[in-house]
Amino acid sequence: MMELNAVPSRTQSASRLIALDWGTSALRALLLGAHGEMLETRTQPWGIMRTPNGDFAQAFRMMTNDWRQRAPYLPAIASGMIGSAQGWLEVPYKTCPAGLDDLVDGLQSLVETDIRLHIVPGIAVRGDLPDVMRGEETQVIGALECVPGLRTDACLVLPGTHSKWVTVRDARIETFSTYMTGELFAVLRDHSILGRPAIAAGVGSDAENANALSAGFDRGVVAVRDHACVGLSALIFSARTLMLTGQLPPVDTLSYLSGLLIGEELRSALARRGARRRGPVTLIGDPQLCARYARAFELFDIPHVVVIEDAATAGLWRIAVRAALIFEDGATALSEPTA
Amino acid sequence: MMELNAVPSRTQSASRLIALDWGTSALRALLLGAHGEMLETRTQPWGIMRTPNGDFAQAFRMMTNDWRQRAPYLPAIASGMIGSAQGWLEVPYKTCPAGLDDLVDGLQSLVETDIRLHIVPGIAVRGDLPDVMRGEETQVIGALECVPGLRTDACLVLPGTHSKWVTVRDARIETFSTYMTGELFAVLRDHSILGRPAIAAGVGSDAENANALSAGFDRGVVAVRDHACVGLSALIFSARTLMLTGQLPPVDTLSYLSGLLIGEELRSALARRGARRRGPVTLIGDPQLCARYARAFELFDIPHVVVIEDAATAGLWRIAVRAALIFEDGATALSEPTA
Repeated sequence: MMELNAVPSRTQSASRLIALDWGTSALRALLLGAHGEMLETRTQPWGIMRTPNGDFAQAFRMMTNDWRQRAPYLPAIASGMIGSAQGWLEVPYKTCPAGLDDLVDGLQSLVETDIRLHIVPGIAVRGDLPDVMRGEETQVIGALECVPGLRTDACLVLPGTHSKWVTVRDARIETFSTYMTGELFAVLRDHSILGRPAIAAGVGSDAENANALSAGFDRGVVAVRDHACVGLSALIFSARTLMLTGQLPPVDTLSYLSGLLIGEELRSALARRGARRRGPVTLIGDPQLCARYARAFELFDIPHVVVIEDAATAGLWRIAVRAALIFEDGATALSEPTA
Repeated sequence: MMELNAVPSRTQSASRLIALDWGTSALRALLLGAHGEMLETRTQPWGIMRTPNGDFAQAFRMMTNDWRQRAPYLPAIASGMIGSAQGWLEVPYKTCPAGLDDLVDGLQSLVETDIRLHIVPGIAVRGDLPDVMRGEETQVIGALECVPGLRTDACLVLPGTHSKWVTVRDARIETFSTYMTGELFAVLRDHSILGRPAIAAGVGSDAENANALSAGFDRGVVAVRDHACVGLSALIFSARTLMLTGQLPPVDTLSYLSGLLIGEELRSALARRGARRRGPVTLIGDPQLCARYARAFELFDIPHVVVIEDAATAGLWRIAVRAALIFEDGATALSEPTA
């Protein structure tokens, strides 16, 4: 059996919920206690595109069997791409605006011999430029739980492969937009003419992090900010021409490109929001990546951005409580055996 | 010896110039007659990144030996990436504004035993967003030769892997900008989540041409035109979400993406030129690709775009004449043997 990154449990008797953050590239399993506190956490690279043998049930069992043996009627909830057409059970999107009650309303149960798993629906924006998310809606619910001040009116940014900009109003997700910033960076780094000089100069393909806050990054953000009308497909070519003309060291070209792409995300997203809503911004996600975004926001004259690192856990807990899978005082609902 | 795509020669005795269009992916050799007319043409996939053994001299000999045996003192001229740092001889860029005389002034000669080859310099825009081209400057000279009306004031667009938008004034290239449209399309098609549905639906990787003018293409162009403020990295995600929501057949997703990228090139380039210069546009390049751009211009309310298919031949001829490598009446200058 593969090794699991298990943290020793503190209070096994208090376990109340298995919460799964199951995305495209990773599966994170959490054992939560009577007040939503984390008792144990395990992560495997078993995202839905990499689940061994595509066998979601086996992956679920390997991650949770010992927890379920210790507490046989423990409810389980999951969010993320596991609810997509390529996942375990396709759960239809709820339409924006959508809040906690809409997600609870859209929960679907998967029953398979010894398994009963509740899967959170993704949400969608309809129209001629539709948009979709799966997993981030749960993080937003978690953020509103952790920082109640965000519920009235907030801009939440979840950076990543497909960054999400979420507008919250009256505790619901009013609308959102996706920016393919992370994926654009990865394909340009690995497969375009722009990635070669840095890689030839010895920058590994983990340059995204290594060069996080280098001078190249700042230059890229500033180039977008100061040349708003140039357009992304022209701007990115400057990662090559600045190097060819000796104005940018090859080793900095990838951090410059990262700055261009993140800067362009900020520029266009802020332009869409308009001047009337240049209010505070909250970042949710990986601390290193959020630090890079926070720096870009500073360069766009938006300082003091708040960062929330793990919002998924609180979100899954909140949805499970609202769905009465558990009671916040610690008792477990729906506790009938399923096999 | 590898087979060459030789067209039977018409008037061998009249040959006056070997002209090479030597880019990143292909090498095209032309034998030109006393008035610049094409006598023979040969093409091999021996661009500088694919030249067998990286041996440029051998490639040159295989392409031209029989021509040179029949006319021993035939001058030879080349333009394109062969003059780059990765090419045969690095020829320094001339700085914009630059015209015919500047290119002639920057010509450099490569001498190697039996070979004497004159290489045309590329040109560069200087500044904090520099830009470079190698090869397209020669096509522009050729276009000005073919259509004299362009010399006073023109916008020339050369679509491709790295599209060039060139502003001509008083017969010189005043400035230009590069858009990485073709390369962006290729990396997103082959390496991102956006390419998978069309490929799964049986659209081959030559979809760029196959779907040239499908309904998907028009929709992509119109989406950019009508959502100018959204930004490219958000717009491209709609190639996925429209498919997920059943609004775009998987088979059309790549032509839609092509429309988005070409549309974004037009949108941002036209915005930079500003309203005062929405004059006629001339396209130079591959007819199929130019047809797609012409359609996009139509959708941006710029009809009647002129297309020039092969401008490189006329450009190389014009530069050779101006440099007195040949005389337009047919005599050959610089006719001393070089080995």
